Amino acid sequence: MTETVITVAGMTCGHCVSAVQGEIGKLPGVTGVEVNLETGTVRITADEPPDRAALSAAVDEAGYELVG
Amino acid sequence: MTETVITVAGMTCGHCVSAVQGEIGKLPGVTGVEVNLETGTVRITADEPPDRAALSAAVDEAGYELVG
Repeated sequence: MTETVITVAGMTCGHCVSAVQGEIGKLPGVTGVEVNLETGTVRITADEPPDRAALSAAVDEAGYELVG
Repeated sequence: MTETVITVAGMTCGHCVSAVQGEIGKLPGVTGVEVNLETGTVRITADEPPDRAALSAAVDEAGYELVG
């Protein structure tokens, strides 16, 4: 089990949180996605560290931007 | 055909707009709901002027607050 923390720009409300959680949650091996709306940080629990490009694509698909 | 303009607090993104449009759009006689996210104003086109309490309930159901 690994934890990865990323920063996502543009999330403003609970709907944004749900959208990001939904997309990242679809990635293989991901078991948890916790979002802090105030800081824009997203903590991902997964069997193996998720691929950075896959994370970026998932965030993009949700309509936001991976910035850190 | 009538136009009613209300002000809704708390909308921050396109998801919020969709949520408010969806709930107000369900009210009887409503034919159009146009949201200005920057100002929080919602312009409602309807056959008859919508009941204020019904509008307030719809906004509340969407998760926001009717303030004007």
